[in-house]
Amino acid sequence: LRTRADFEAMDAKDPLRCRRDRFALPDGLVYLDGNSLGALPKATAAVLQEVVQQEWGRDLITSWNRHGWIDLPRRVGAAIARLIGAGPDEVVVTDSISINLFKLACAALRLRPGRRVVLSERGGFPTDLYMIQGLSELMDGRVELRLVAADELEAALDADVALLMLNHVDYRSGRLLDMGRLTRAAHEAGALVLFDLAHSAGALPVELRAHDVDLAVGCGYKYLNGGPGAPAFLFVAARLQEAMRQPLSGWFGHAAPFAFEEAYRPAAGVARFLSGTPPILSLRALEAGLETFDGVDPGALREKSMRLTQLFIELIEERCAGFGLDVASPRDPKRRGSHVAVRHAEGHAVSKALIARGVIGDFRAPDLMRFGFAPLYNRYVDVFDSVEAMHAILSTNAWKDAVFQHRESVT
Amino acid sequence: LRTRADFEAMDAKDPLRCRRDRFALPDGLVYLDGNSLGALPKATAAVLQEVVQQEWGRDLITSWNRHGWIDLPRRVGAAIARLIGAGPDEVVVTDSISINLFKLACAALRLRPGRRVVLSERGGFPTDLYMIQGLSELMDGRVELRLVAADELEAALDADVALLMLNHVDYRSGRLLDMGRLTRAAHEAGALVLFDLAHSAGALPVELRAHDVDLAVGCGYKYLNGGPGAPAFLFVAARLQEAMRQPLSGWFGHAAPFAFEEAYRPAAGVARFLSGTPPILSLRALEAGLETFDGVDPGALREKSMRLTQLFIELIEERCAGFGLDVASPRDPKRRGSHVAVRHAEGHAVSKALIARGVIGDFRAPDLMRFGFAPLYNRYVDVFDSVEAMHAILSTNAWKDAVFQHRESVT
Repeated sequence: LRTRADFEAMDAKDPLRCRRDRFALPDGLVYLDGNSLGALPKATAAVLQEVVQQEWGRDLITSWNRHGWIDLPRRVGAAIARLIGAGPDEVVVTDSISINLFKLACAALRLRPGRRVVLSERGGFPTDLYMIQGLSELMDGRVELRLVAADELEAALDADVALLMLNHVDYRSGRLLDMGRLTRAAHEAGALVLFDLAHSAGALPVELRAHDVDLAVGCGYKYLNGGPGAPAFLFVAARLQEAMRQPLSGWFGHAAPFAFEEAYRPAAGVARFLSGTPPILSLRALEAGLETFDGVDPGALREKSMRLTQLFIELIEERCAGFGLDVASPRDPKRRGSHVAVRHAEGHAVSKALIARGVIGDFRAPDLMRFGFAPLYNRYVDVFDSVEAMHAILSTNAWKDAVFQHRESVT
Repeated sequence: LRTRADFEAMDAKDPLRCRRDRFALPDGLVYLDGNSLGALPKATAAVLQEVVQQEWGRDLITSWNRHGWIDLPRRVGAAIARLIGAGPDEVVVTDSISINLFKLACAALRLRPGRRVVLSERGGFPTDLYMIQGLSELMDGRVELRLVAADELEAALDADVALLMLNHVDYRSGRLLDMGRLTRAAHEAGALVLFDLAHSAGALPVELRAHDVDLAVGCGYKYLNGGPGAPAFLFVAARLQEAMRQPLSGWFGHAAPFAFEEAYRPAAGVARFLSGTPPILSLRALEAGLETFDGVDPGALREKSMRLTQLFIELIEERCAGFGLDVASPRDPKRRGSHVAVRHAEGHAVSKALIARGVIGDFRAPDLMRFGFAPLYNRYVDVFDSVEAMHAILSTNAWKDAVFQHRESVT
């Protein structure tokens, strides 16, 4: 039987163990929700003080040039590019995943005239589906969202499909799709492919270029540690950029925003996917979040993440057998992202009871508890401590007492 | 002849004079660009420290409920509503002006089937026009942007016009449109009306309800003091909300975002105009900016603003006569917003020379200098000091020496 000391020993040998010191995690808390809201980097508060007091407060409007505010969407995009296997000129930070999906879906449909279908997986993250529904309604049915089960995706790639739009890691089960195989299948069918990297960027190496992916979006507030509601990013393969046009053509995506021309002319490259004035405070916070990855090999993150999730699954099954738990994530770590989903008929109450004991995961109706392992700051002892808390709750029926107020947390 | 002491005396009698103490303006600087980037409120830094350290850092994901993050788009919207003559349930803070214009234009066109024209003013703020151009291109011409001169707007309101979209205050000249008259004209022609309040919200009382305006957008980073790239707001008259649908239908605009339903169902009321996850840090900074208006009567702001701009025009014409300056703003203060535009053939160099002397305005090609007066923090002596600086520069040709690096500032 494994003891806490065994997990402490794993932490002692963890090449990433010092990274946790970069985060302001409360003592005694086991935080397993970095897949929903990344922890606060210690450096962020000082970065925000500087941008607020010195740049905004003292240098005011001149900071757009003096402090490079104007370049932030591309500069922060380049910092993300390294984590997702993209070139520095292929990524820009702007808007939200929802808005960016709309831009990219419109641009993709325009590149595939005569094809009207966006193909996606039934049960994919809702906002992704809602945005295509909104587009379809706007276009009066000339765009169609086609939803199928994951194992039917390839068969559904017919000559009507303009875009295959997928969640790289499923937000519920944590299942990781085979990016290379699905991209090849889309390309063979003449379609473009778009991956939503919300649950993979920053948790595992994403090889967009190596897999010849066309388009991607992702979020700044999960594994990238950019803070609540941090702006999102989008990726457009360099080979496609000049041919693409998107309809949310705001002035920051113009070739000469400060010429105040009457007609829109798209900026060169990925900057044409910008729209309105960029959110400077949020961009600087996200940049500080990304600095927690400096010098880290994404492969090392993946290795640790796979071990953490594997140990969690094994320990749940060893320690909590007979309590009605059911692991809903793939057993093969190569087919799993960085969170583990566990079903329990009383999952909502169990999740509350865990929070009351200082183990923060989250819950997705009707019965799914999610536990995210952020390899930059989660420890092997977090695996042990969370499973011990789970055991204590289930073995004493303590969840029945959980009368804790807790609204559903955010994706 | 008026002396600096005369202006000091006006400041001494100014009922708003203590408000300046709420802002962290650098000593010795005459800041006349609050129409581009509002000054930093002193309270903002502490608010951001709290949201970062306590809410994000300590309470993490639970803050969506515990600290009311989930309600921020509507709560901050309600704080703006007071300044623009709207009901608290008619305004929400989200995205950028560009994105919000797209949502509202689509929703308006849907309410006026058979009408395909968005009518606007030639020379209006570029991003507003670009967004409708993007929509028109996406809709393959089934939406048309029609641009006419301001005095031709009413004549152009024919049976094809679905939406009249206007800048309340012109970003260059500062000209203020007659909201009531144009709204009545639009309604008589069967069109809806949308005002962009970027240069009026927070500077003068905007009476959306009193004038029966349908739709509006506005920006958080100018007179509302929300910080660089602060999120924008949108207004939808209560009487229209339930009938409106917008295509950027992200999960935060869903009736039950955390039910993770497959099909989009719009939220009740103005919340259906939300899209992605709201930017919490920026929303809290904007909320702090809005608190600088607490207890201030918008009418008092307007009165001071009109006096400041009127005195500036008079003093420019008295002190700087013969130097090739030409006031490009309306002379009637009732037809003017809160900034004054002044033409000079060497305006770019003069603007740089002013900045080198600590007078911050901005410049719009080819020859327009803009001077914004934010009645919450600008003083009567700012009028005097800026005109004295202008006189010193023009009378000595000092602008010829201005070799100061200065990229164009933002809107």
